[in-house]
Amino acid sequence: MSKHPRGGGFLLALLDQGFEQEKPLYLVNPNADEIQGLTCYPSLLDTPGPVDHVISSVPARAVEGLIEQSIEKGVRSIHFYTAGFAEIGDPELAALQDRLMARAVDAGIRVIGPNCMGLYVPREKIAFQNNFPPEPGNVMAISQSGGNAMDIVFGLALRGVRFSKLVSFGNASDVAAPELFDYAAEDPETEYVISYLEGADGGRALFEAVRRCARIKPTIILKGGLTSAGARAASSHTGSLAGSRDVFEAMCRQTGAIRAATMTELHDLLIGVSTNLRRVQGPRAMMVGGGGGFSVLAADAMANVGVDLPELAEQTTAELRRLMPVAGNSIRNPIDASHFHSGDAREDSLREVLRVAAHAPDIDALFVTTGSAPSWIDPPAPGQKPDPERERRRAERRLLAEKQSMQDLIDLQAEAERPVIGVRRARGVERWLTDEVLELAYAHGLAVFPSLPRAARTLGRLLEWRARREGLPELF
Amino acid sequence: MSKHPRGGGFLLALLDQGFEQEKPLYLVNPNADEIQGLTCYPSLLDTPGPVDHVISSVPARAVEGLIEQSIEKGVRSIHFYTAGFAEIGDPELAALQDRLMARAVDAGIRVIGPNCMGLYVPREKIAFQNNFPPEPGNVMAISQSGGNAMDIVFGLALRGVRFSKLVSFGNASDVAAPELFDYAAEDPETEYVISYLEGADGGRALFEAVRRCARIKPTIILKGGLTSAGARAASSHTGSLAGSRDVFEAMCRQTGAIRAATMTELHDLLIGVSTNLRRVQGPRAMMVGGGGGFSVLAADAMANVGVDLPELAEQTTAELRRLMPVAGNSIRNPIDASHFHSGDAREDSLREVLRVAAHAPDIDALFVTTGSAPSWIDPPAPGQKPDPERERRRAERRLLAEKQSMQDLIDLQAEAERPVIGVRRARGVERWLTDEVLELAYAHGLAVFPSLPRAARTLGRLLEWRARREGLPELF
Repeated sequence: MSKHPRGGGFLLALLDQGFEQEKPLYLVNPNADEIQGLTCYPSLLDTPGPVDHVISSVPARAVEGLIEQSIEKGVRSIHFYTAGFAEIGDPELAALQDRLMARAVDAGIRVIGPNCMGLYVPREKIAFQNNFPPEPGNVMAISQSGGNAMDIVFGLALRGVRFSKLVSFGNASDVAAPELFDYAAEDPETEYVISYLEGADGGRALFEAVRRCARIKPTIILKGGLTSAGARAASSHTGSLAGSRDVFEAMCRQTGAIRAATMTELHDLLIGVSTNLRRVQGPRAMMVGGGGGFSVLAADAMANVGVDLPELAEQTTAELRRLMPVAGNSIRNPIDASHFHSGDAREDSLREVLRVAAHAPDIDALFVTTGSAPSWIDPPAPGQKPDPERERRRAERRLLAEKQSMQDLIDLQAEAERPVIGVRRARGVERWLTDEVLELAYAHGLAVFPSLPRAARTLGRLLEWRARREGLPELF
Repeated sequence: MSKHPRGGGFLLALLDQGFEQEKPLYLVNPNADEIQGLTCYPSLLDTPGPVDHVISSVPARAVEGLIEQSIEKGVRSIHFYTAGFAEIGDPELAALQDRLMARAVDAGIRVIGPNCMGLYVPREKIAFQNNFPPEPGNVMAISQSGGNAMDIVFGLALRGVRFSKLVSFGNASDVAAPELFDYAAEDPETEYVISYLEGADGGRALFEAVRRCARIKPTIILKGGLTSAGARAASSHTGSLAGSRDVFEAMCRQTGAIRAATMTELHDLLIGVSTNLRRVQGPRAMMVGGGGGFSVLAADAMANVGVDLPELAEQTTAELRRLMPVAGNSIRNPIDASHFHSGDAREDSLREVLRVAAHAPDIDALFVTTGSAPSWIDPPAPGQKPDPERERRRAERRLLAEKQSMQDLIDLQAEAERPVIGVRRARGVERWLTDEVLELAYAHGLAVFPSLPRAARTLGRLLEWRARREGLPELF
């Protein structure tokens, strides 16, 4: 085995988790006797027990032999990492893919790929990256691209989401999108479905499967290749025919699915449908926090996506005026509570302001900024050089403050009569809540976004989507 | 002094830096004899030497007295944090602001504010946050909002940018945007100008000042309050009359300034104009890196903002075919070089691919993914628990790899005949380059963005802007 094995990630993923498997895991490699202490067999036929599933990264020229061995061995499914087929754009290679995969399928073997990352099924301890979360969840991801599947897992895992199954299916020679949407619709472990597609090859079958799935489970789809440059890239990547934006948009509209415009929006919409935010009933928002300039830009961002910040009821204004000092805070909506963020007495007042907001009449959603631990926590003394131990303690105190602030929002959510949405008050690219705090929020159904524009846009898109589902079953 | 002093940030900032000042710093507070070891005087008139500049966070009711003392003391300028004036929306408070500030101005004192954060001038060791970078730079920021000014400094400092001056001027009772743009135009320490404005009160004066500034220095402006909800918020925040989007857009078009649509875009455009990216001559891009699905979405994102990914010249394709294995890599544009990211021999090949791209004919810009250290660096052994010392060494090796990869791009930039643009291959919200690596890139004029869509959009906006400047002096 070379120092930097290709496919090392998935191999290690299996090795890491394989020891706890109920079923044995066999390694096959004609050039090694042993890998990381596990016996290596020269061929599939030399493995000592029955084999259900083969994970293959053999080169394209060795695929035919492996299929013949798999048929002889009674294998039920093969996942091919192997690339070099239809995606090359050479008709001979496309024909070779068709012939080889048909040979497997005709013999009763299901094929995933070729040219894909395959399966991530945490409950079965199968993963193609050794740093995917080991805990199972309730989101199924259907992704033609393995790299984009990794973006989905890493991006959402940070925010507390966990997965029931993920299938990266590449050139889709056998297992393809329509069947996977049907699986997702029926799978009791799956409550939400997200998908990255390149091909629209399935045509009617894809439409019908998405319709069956989106009818009963929130289904969000990001489609790559909707511009001509993107379509050209999709053809090189998975040999897909990409289809037009209009057709795809119409499919989402007619099936009740949600189209995500970007990978970021795919993540945000999943947070939207799988937290209390999904229950939002209208566009009338209230915002508390942030500071004046932030409030101005927040109001602009909301207006641009159809979210209103109505004038508050007189009763609400009167209650707020009682709680807030006049100077330096706006009690008009958005409410600039930035001056509350220093000192315990002020924090208590902020809680009271939030309680008023939680019950204000004629408000559908409450945006609250969160995440910046107060800057007064243990600042370095003047002229003092940073001390690692002090910095560590400071980080601990900041984490505690972050957690307390998130717990306050969780409590507020429990009492509020509308969704509460936590929004990062952005200070540069890097600052964001720690994984632990984001997971705490998500576990309590609280939607949290890394910026106000993303939060507002998600709310706007969810409202559009709910309006379009008129006539379909209520999902929430 | 209370445990959590209001305004503690700015006070500490001055204390931190004040000891090195050539001029003395006097603290004034009637309720303390000493703060952090420095003598505290009961009133401005009790300070032992002359005072040029007063930084004031007295409550609104004490402003009049402070102004009278300042006149008596011969003070030249006052910055008022103090809020509670025109931004409240009460005509009496607005009239009070007018009267008090006119008293100061008529006595020859310049006033910054009220209701603002004031000055950040690193060369003079003045800052209103103790974690602003102490080193001076070449960007001047003109921001009506103090909180948004902090977003500008923190967001751009991470990416290597440093500032000549920053002025947060709040209610703009005296020092206001037109004068600050004129200052920026003439200031020899300022090469680039960015601004967050709420009011368009200046009218013709603002237009003329922006024109004088934008004519000779890249000038980027984010305007808050361009929707009716935003305008309402701006009025509560700085008492500004916000004006319409059309008028503001026309002002930018006619003056040669760039309008940023969001805070994020303000940051990205500054990176664009202050790196080699500003020299881009047209929309024909080439992209190397990423992986197949990423390439598909990248192509879509570029097409959406008018950036082309043309088919490559035959000669380029032939050279790439020689360098790249057929399976698993696309040599069409975008070039999927993801399979190169493991192993030293592969890295050498990637360098050669990039060299071909650097000299390919008919290409205006070269996008290259960067920032993910290869995952094969010292992975944890199977079944092993994380070991802090091992993790530390691993982090060190990853940082080294990140630096080497950035240095490769810097070298490529030096040899390429077009701008090179580093783009993060996004894996979740959190992953980004370390400050050190971003600063290295920026110091060498290399533009780096946290996502492909943001990089592409910046390029598209710069091209639009250059086209609109027809007839104005060449800036680069």
